[in-house]
Amino acid sequence: MSTVAIVGAGLIGQGWAIVFARAGWQVRLYDVDAGRLQAGRDLVVQQLHALQAHGLLDDAAAISARVHTTATLEAALSGASYVQENSPEDVALKRDLFSKLDALSGPDAVLASSTSSIPASRFTEHLAHRERCLVAHPVNPPYLVPVVEISGAPWTSPQVVARARDILASVGQRPVEVRKEVEGFILNRLQGALLQEAMRLVQDGVASVEDIDTTVKDGLGLRWSFMGPLETIDLNAPGGIADYCARYGPMYASIGATQSACPPWAGELLETLSRERRALLDEKDLAARRFWRDEQLMRLMRHKQEGGETNG
Amino acid sequence: MSTVAIVGAGLIGQGWAIVFARAGWQVRLYDVDAGRLQAGRDLVVQQLHALQAHGLLDDAAAISARVHTTATLEAALSGASYVQENSPEDVALKRDLFSKLDALSGPDAVLASSTSSIPASRFTEHLAHRERCLVAHPVNPPYLVPVVEISGAPWTSPQVVARARDILASVGQRPVEVRKEVEGFILNRLQGALLQEAMRLVQDGVASVEDIDTTVKDGLGLRWSFMGPLETIDLNAPGGIADYCARYGPMYASIGATQSACPPWAGELLETLSRERRALLDEKDLAARRFWRDEQLMRLMRHKQEGGETNG
Repeated sequence: MSTVAIVGAGLIGQGWAIVFARAGWQVRLYDVDAGRLQAGRDLVVQQLHALQAHGLLDDAAAISARVHTTATLEAALSGASYVQENSPEDVALKRDLFSKLDALSGPDAVLASSTSSIPASRFTEHLAHRERCLVAHPVNPPYLVPVVEISGAPWTSPQVVARARDILASVGQRPVEVRKEVEGFILNRLQGALLQEAMRLVQDGVASVEDIDTTVKDGLGLRWSFMGPLETIDLNAPGGIADYCARYGPMYASIGATQSACPPWAGELLETLSRERRALLDEKDLAARRFWRDEQLMRLMRHKQEGGETNG
Repeated sequence: MSTVAIVGAGLIGQGWAIVFARAGWQVRLYDVDAGRLQAGRDLVVQQLHALQAHGLLDDAAAISARVHTTATLEAALSGASYVQENSPEDVALKRDLFSKLDALSGPDAVLASSTSSIPASRFTEHLAHRERCLVAHPVNPPYLVPVVEISGAPWTSPQVVARARDILASVGQRPVEVRKEVEGFILNRLQGALLQEAMRLVQDGVASVEDIDTTVKDGLGLRWSFMGPLETIDLNAPGGIADYCARYGPMYASIGATQSACPPWAGELLETLSRERRALLDEKDLAARRFWRDEQLMRLMRHKQEGGETNG
C-alpha cells in the first residue's frame, strides 16, 4: 500500500488528497493549523461525494476512509514514498519547511512542491538530499484538470524526475516535464502568450471581450481540448507539421512581428475588460458561475473518460 | 423559405452547404468546374449521413434534398438573400468574381467571402454596391466548429454586418466581429501567439512537443472548450478580472517581456518538430488520425449540445 504525505491542507492540498486517495493511496494530511487541517479533510469528503454524484467515482466513503489527518509532520512523513508540499508562496518559508521535510522523510521519498512561481533551486539548494526535490505544479482543481508540471532544479536527479512522472501518471494525472527552470513553467507561458494577444485585440479595438472568448470556446478551444496545438497543425496540412510550417509559417511570422508589445493590464484597457465582463456577468454572480464552471469540467471529464481518447 | 448561394463547391463550400441546408435553407451550389460541382454535392450528402450516424441530425435525406446544383452563376444567385464565396485565395480572381456577384445578385443580398487571408477592402473597393460585401471566415469544418469571423471593409455598412451576424447565428454558427482589418483576423492571431510560444519552448529545449500538447489538452484546453480565456481569468480571482489583473498582471508582464522573439519555423526547430511528431504519429497514419479528430469533434459537439451551455 503506497502512502503520500500532503503538507498543507488548504485548497491545493485538498485537491491532491482527492487525487491520491481516489487512486487507492493512503493519504496522510498535515497542516500547522489544526483547525484548517480538520476543515480541509471535511472539504475533501464533501468534494468526493460531489464527484460521486457526478458519476466520476464509485465509492466516496471508501475513498474518504483513506484520508487521515496527522497531528505532527513526523507522523505525516512516516512511511510516505511521495511528499507534496502546499504552503504559501514564500521562499523563506519553503526553505525552512523543505529542511524539515528532507530531515524527516524516508531516504527514498520524493519531495515535491506545488509552487506555481518559485523555482525549486531557490528553496532546495542547501539540503542534504536536494537531488530528490522538485516542483510538481498542479492546475486547480487537480482531480478535474490532470496536467501537472514537473520542474526540477539543476541538481534534481533524472531518476527522481522519472519517478515523480511515474507516480503522478499512476494516480491518473498527466505529468509534463519543464526541462529548464523558466518563469511560468509551460502552462502559464502558453496562457500568457494567448492572453497578451487578447489584450492587444481589446486595446486596439479589434474585438470585444465576448467575441474573443467566443473565438476560443467555439473555435480554437474545441480541438485543443483533445489534441494539443502542435498536433492540431500537424493534421492541418496534407504532409503534416513540416508542410504546415512551409505553407503558413510566413503568415504567422508576419503576424508575430506585430505581437511583441504587452500593454499594461491596467488603466483604460482594464476598464474596458471590467466593463465588458461585468455587463456579461454581474459581480454578485461570479460565485455561481464558478460552480457552473466546475460542473462543466466534471461533465467534460466524464465525456473524455467515455471517449477512450488515445495519444497520437 | 430562405435561399443561400454557395459559390465554389470545394471543401469549404461543401461545409457551408451543410450548415445552411441543416438549418432549413434552400442551398444553390455552384462551381465553374461541373465535375467538382457534382462531386461536391455527393460529398455533402455523404457527410450529412455521417452526421446522422453520430446523432448530430435527424434526417440526412431531407436535408440533402435542399442542396441543389446550378449550371450557371446566375441561377445560383437568383433569389438568394445571402451569398458565400469560396474561391481560391487569389485577389485578382476574387475581384473579378465579386464584380459578377455584385452585378447578378438581388439588391438586398449580402455578399460574403470565406477568405482567411485577404481583407475585404482588397477585392470590393471597385464595386457599385460594395457596402454589402464582407468576409465571413469559417473554421473547417464549419458544421462542427461554429465560430465565423465577420470582417468588413471600411465601407461595409454596419447594417450589413449586423444582418450577416443575424443570418449566421440563425443557422447555428457563432459569429464574431473583427472591427478593423487586421492580418489573421482574431482566431489566427490568438492561435499564432500561442504557437509562437510553443515554438520558443521547443527551440529553447524547455519542453517536448508531446508535453506542450499535453499541457493544452489536459490543462488549458479543457476550460477553453466551454469558456474563453477572458472569462477563465475573470473566474480565477475572488474579485473577477480586475482582481486577476492586479494579482497576476506583473507576472504575465515579466513573462511577456521574454516572448517577443519569433524563431523561423524552419531549420533545426522544424527538424525537432517533425522528428518528435513523426515519432508519435507515422506519416502514413495522418489520414486516419484526421478521421479520429473529426470523430472527436462530433462527439464533443454532441456533448456540448446536451449540456445546454449558456453564455455568461
